[in-house]
Amino acid sequence: MNADILKERQNATFDVEKLTNILDGGPELTKRRREIESMVLNDPDFMEEDPNFLSRSERYDQAVRKSAQMILKLREYGIADPEEIYCYKSMACGPRPEPVGLHFAMFLPTLYNQCEPEQSRKWLPLAESLRVVGTYAQTEIGHGTHLRGLETTATYDPATQEFVLNSPTVSSIKWWPGGLGKTSNHAIVLAQLYTQGNCHGLHAFIVPIRDMNTHVPLPGIVVGDIGPKFGFDEIDNGYLKMENVRIPRENMLMKYAKVEPDGTYKKPPSAKLTYGTMVFIRSMIVGESARALSKASTIAIRYSAVRHQSEIRPGEPEPQILDFQTQQYKLFPLLATAYAFIFVGQYMKDTYSRISGDINQGDFSELPELHALSAGLKAFTTWTANAAIEVCRMSCGGHGYSRSSGLPDLYVNFTPTCTYEGENTVMMLQTARYLVKSYQQAKAGQQLSGIVSYLNETDHRRVQPQPVSARPTVVDINDLASLVEIYKLRAAILVGMAAKSIQQELQHRKNQADAWNNSAIDLVKASDAHCHYVVVKLFTDKLGEIGDTAVHSVVSSLALLYALHGITVNSGDFLQAGLLSVPQVLQISVRIKELLSQLRPNAVALVDSFDIHNKKLNSVLGRYDGNVYENMFEWARRSPLNATEVSQIQCLVLRSKC
Amino acid sequence: MNADILKERQNATFDVEKLTNILDGGPELTKRRREIESMVLNDPDFMEEDPNFLSRSERYDQAVRKSAQMILKLREYGIADPEEIYCYKSMACGPRPEPVGLHFAMFLPTLYNQCEPEQSRKWLPLAESLRVVGTYAQTEIGHGTHLRGLETTATYDPATQEFVLNSPTVSSIKWWPGGLGKTSNHAIVLAQLYTQGNCHGLHAFIVPIRDMNTHVPLPGIVVGDIGPKFGFDEIDNGYLKMENVRIPRENMLMKYAKVEPDGTYKKPPSAKLTYGTMVFIRSMIVGESARALSKASTIAIRYSAVRHQSEIRPGEPEPQILDFQTQQYKLFPLLATAYAFIFVGQYMKDTYSRISGDINQGDFSELPELHALSAGLKAFTTWTANAAIEVCRMSCGGHGYSRSSGLPDLYVNFTPTCTYEGENTVMMLQTARYLVKSYQQAKAGQQLSGIVSYLNETDHRRVQPQPVSARPTVVDINDLASLVEIYKLRAAILVGMAAKSIQQELQHRKNQADAWNNSAIDLVKASDAHCHYVVVKLFTDKLGEIGDTAVHSVVSSLALLYALHGITVNSGDFLQAGLLSVPQVLQISVRIKELLSQLRPNAVALVDSFDIHNKKLNSVLGRYDGNVYENMFEWARRSPLNATEVSQIQCLVLRSKC
Repeated sequence: MNADILKERQNATFDVEKLTNILDGGPELTKRRREIESMVLNDPDFMEEDPNFLSRSERYDQAVRKSAQMILKLREYGIADPEEIYCYKSMACGPRPEPVGLHFAMFLPTLYNQCEPEQSRKWLPLAESLRVVGTYAQTEIGHGTHLRGLETTATYDPATQEFVLNSPTVSSIKWWPGGLGKTSNHAIVLAQLYTQGNCHGLHAFIVPIRDMNTHVPLPGIVVGDIGPKFGFDEIDNGYLKMENVRIPRENMLMKYAKVEPDGTYKKPPSAKLTYGTMVFIRSMIVGESARALSKASTIAIRYSAVRHQSEIRPGEPEPQILDFQTQQYKLFPLLATAYAFIFVGQYMKDTYSRISGDINQGDFSELPELHALSAGLKAFTTWTANAAIEVCRMSCGGHGYSRSSGLPDLYVNFTPTCTYEGENTVMMLQTARYLVKSYQQAKAGQQLSGIVSYLNETDHRRVQPQPVSARPTVVDINDLASLVEIYKLRAAILVGMAAKSIQQELQHRKNQADAWNNSAIDLVKASDAHCHYVVVKLFTDKLGEIGDTAVHSVVSSLALLYALHGITVNSGDFLQAGLLSVPQVLQISVRIKELLSQLRPNAVALVDSFDIHNKKLNSVLGRYDGNVYENMFEWARRSPLNATEVSQIQCLVLRSKC
Repeated sequence: MNADILKERQNATFDVEKLTNILDGGPELTKRRREIESMVLNDPDFMEEDPNFLSRSERYDQAVRKSAQMILKLREYGIADPEEIYCYKSMACGPRPEPVGLHFAMFLPTLYNQCEPEQSRKWLPLAESLRVVGTYAQTEIGHGTHLRGLETTATYDPATQEFVLNSPTVSSIKWWPGGLGKTSNHAIVLAQLYTQGNCHGLHAFIVPIRDMNTHVPLPGIVVGDIGPKFGFDEIDNGYLKMENVRIPRENMLMKYAKVEPDGTYKKPPSAKLTYGTMVFIRSMIVGESARALSKASTIAIRYSAVRHQSEIRPGEPEPQILDFQTQQYKLFPLLATAYAFIFVGQYMKDTYSRISGDINQGDFSELPELHALSAGLKAFTTWTANAAIEVCRMSCGGHGYSRSSGLPDLYVNFTPTCTYEGENTVMMLQTARYLVKSYQQAKAGQQLSGIVSYLNETDHRRVQPQPVSARPTVVDINDLASLVEIYKLRAAILVGMAAKSIQQELQHRKNQADAWNNSAIDLVKASDAHCHYVVVKLFTDKLGEIGDTAVHSVVSSLALLYALHGITVNSGDFLQAGLLSVPQVLQISVRIKELLSQLRPNAVALVDSFDIHNKKLNSVLGRYDGNVYENMFEWARRSPLNATEVSQIQCLVLRSKC
């Protein structure tokens, strides 16, 4: 082991294993996770070529082969719990997505949720055995987030009792679904349903796209890969153009809405029923943000402990990068953010499972709040983690650009979370809609419950932007409860300001839609402040659950750093609202520097606590043993460009032309 | 042409060509640029495979072939002016770097600057004819920015009158130089010079690395490609390990420092002499930031005019994305930034050529200021453009992730500017050193000149953070001169605060080095504020040169947007310093919204003014004609994964295993 990183570990003030257990949700879960991880580790079938050295087609092939292996193994070991499947998969695939990912994440769940019994009997055995490999085809080349804008049509023909599917325009070609290009033989296609001359909006249809024996595209189907992307090399995101493709009436998913044999349309009983999967996926993405940021900060902090560069004191040897204040200031707030997001992810998972229990019993009352929260937090955490991964990468100097660092792959495979499952700005505006509605309800005298209950407190609603208020004197910048309070007030004020902007616009134009659009900047800001408050609050709440004193102490420092750093970045808001005074903002800057020094000796131990195995981290810079340079040299020598000492092109071009 | 984009062009309020001329520096320069561009466009030798569909090795081969073509053509057409060479190259290579880039950017210039006459006679003809293809090998696997930390040694052996070069450790292996892995047959190697038992620090040596006839690596040389990276697929960034490699004494570049045949070392007359190239390259990178951001905003804004999505008014067709306030708020400040950086780039180029004239006449007086300015602005503009490209990419929805958008390539090939030629944080600290030094000189009664002269004004130095000052009443948020003034005051205050922090640290610890490191956060903030002031000032100054009323009007709106947007993002600073009042900050938010609406009709015309040819833009989304989707479909069909309708892996894995 590298001497520097060893020393770092010896200097830690807390027991890493105890913190790992907290992050896993208990020592039993840590143990089980490691058991599952070791199944992959010790399995020769998961030995693979470094994808960095392969062409995209080779990467796709390797990934398909691995997915097939994985499915067999999961069955063999009887791993069926979704958490455990996730754990197995993320060890086997590392940071890379897998071509049959959507089969499991969208195709099967949609069948589970939207088949009527007859359909379940037909399709589930086929899909579960992977005779049918499916994907979920919603977005079109010209249409994304806005479902009503989709153009694909499914027109019912009562004569043959079939639906006829068409892509009537170029802009209606289905575009982006993962696994659509080459891998899938079926797709759930979202299309505008026409029957008896009327359009009934978007519905889901099972469309066979390739022959189940020959895998050749079926008549009327034009299907293929949409070409290389920023990352996701393993995935055949695809296009699908349909020309009079006929499917039997029974291929419409009919648990809720129905089309009778004669073409009569029956509406679904509730619009909320299709809502759940989306909320689930967005909640899970919060956890993805935490995991991605944990990996990035593990790599950046370990390498910063190993890397010596430049000088602090003239004449002395190059110090560890981690001793530079600027490096600490880049990385420690992100480390704190990773912890914050892990705890928020745990909260979202728990909340989802609690509320989905309610939903199964017909109680939808908490769904709107969860919907709003998952939308905003999905955007808040993915945007933050996205930018943070790049900060981590660039904090590694030149080597952060090498694929051997793992950071480029981590970034390109994470960044799509900002766009898929709901574009982030749209997500923020959805949350804002809920906040403004709640604000107006509170103003109208309704008593709000849940996470927006702070909009009730009438005194907060009266807080107005002001240079200096009486409040600041009571804020203790070292007290998290006090900081949670001012984050809450900031959110309340910004929600109020957004609502006021809409009001003012309405007075000028009397058009709700334009008033909303002309207040959109304020609305996004309000959502962001709301999410920030929620994260600070949940992080603070979590501290109450940590018993071990040493662990509590270091995690408290992280929470304080997270809260104070967020204030300095948004100090304008806090000053504007009179929530903090100028001297307090200056004190906070000083306090942040103290916290950086305080966290410095525990930085490596804090990333060790994430307990991310080398194979999963997939980074020469982030290796647990810190032996970076010799391994980077080894890796480089395997570059395909080094296969020949002298390449043809060198001889042909350089020598003959010059 | 797409109807939406046509309408946009018809609605513009100014003459695009006139603005293009301003950006080029005059109508003659526009004309000449287009002439050069059309040479590439009409040249069948520059037809190529879309690199997105090639493996990295194929991309390298294609790039080498193209570089060789380019060199021949430049000679054939007699294009020798560096500006014109740059123009030709950027048309031929698009956003991609070229394997012999460093030969021209570093190897040749270093020969020009550091050869003594005898050496020039030997090496220049070889290098100019590309018999010798060279690179510049400075960084090592374990060492970057800090030159004194480099470990490679060149030990003089008077017995044979040779230098013996060695890479004594793993961490000393030369790493990253472009074109080192496969392309070059020589390298200028930076190594610690030892002679007569003493080390004299870093010096430059010409080291033959491959046989000039067979291209086989020479004895003692281990050389190769460092493997795939985040972008730069075309480039064989390389490693070089040397074991007792002997080169004649004459291969040390001896214009300044010398080693006599008996081993006597002669110091260079001035340390500043090697300074110039670095300042030049950093100044040029400011222009690169402008160009990259111009491209990204062209793509994002054109596509936002073509793309219809979601809804503003219920029931109406999907509006152009560009009509959403959130989209305008994402893109228009970046568009303004692109303009700002173009003007700053012009200023840096002009200033460099003026000052290098002085230097040639032995006057180094302005070099320190230019050095400080180029370091800070390099960091400020590359960080800004880097983040901005990603904002542009993500503003394009899913398609921003497709390589056909051109945005992923633009990002990965631009982002290294944040690290190479001086890591950005280090750059910011270099500028801070100059600022603090100037501040202390002014405090000691010296009269400062040049861009830091604002630190003179004693009344500014007395400005202290305060909640409300008397000043705000005189700030007119619509008057750029007034805004330049408060940006200046902010910079003065933050430089003062950083200096004060160092002072306080010194009182606590009495150690200059630690005091500096413990103030580094404040120092970076001060540098950033200084650069921001410079950019706002130069943008404002430029307006004075624009005669055409319509162009002046729209560019003034951009400048105002740039200045006001920067204030809202940093509103904490302005409030803290009492430079603006809370009501003014609120007014600024309102004013920004007005400016967005005001710029909306000219957005497409403002990116058209950049006049970036489709071939150079290399983006389906950013096409001049706006015909996005049909071309995207065409592009996708050429994806190598579509070469076979059914791939082996599908049949083998999916069908046999399931």
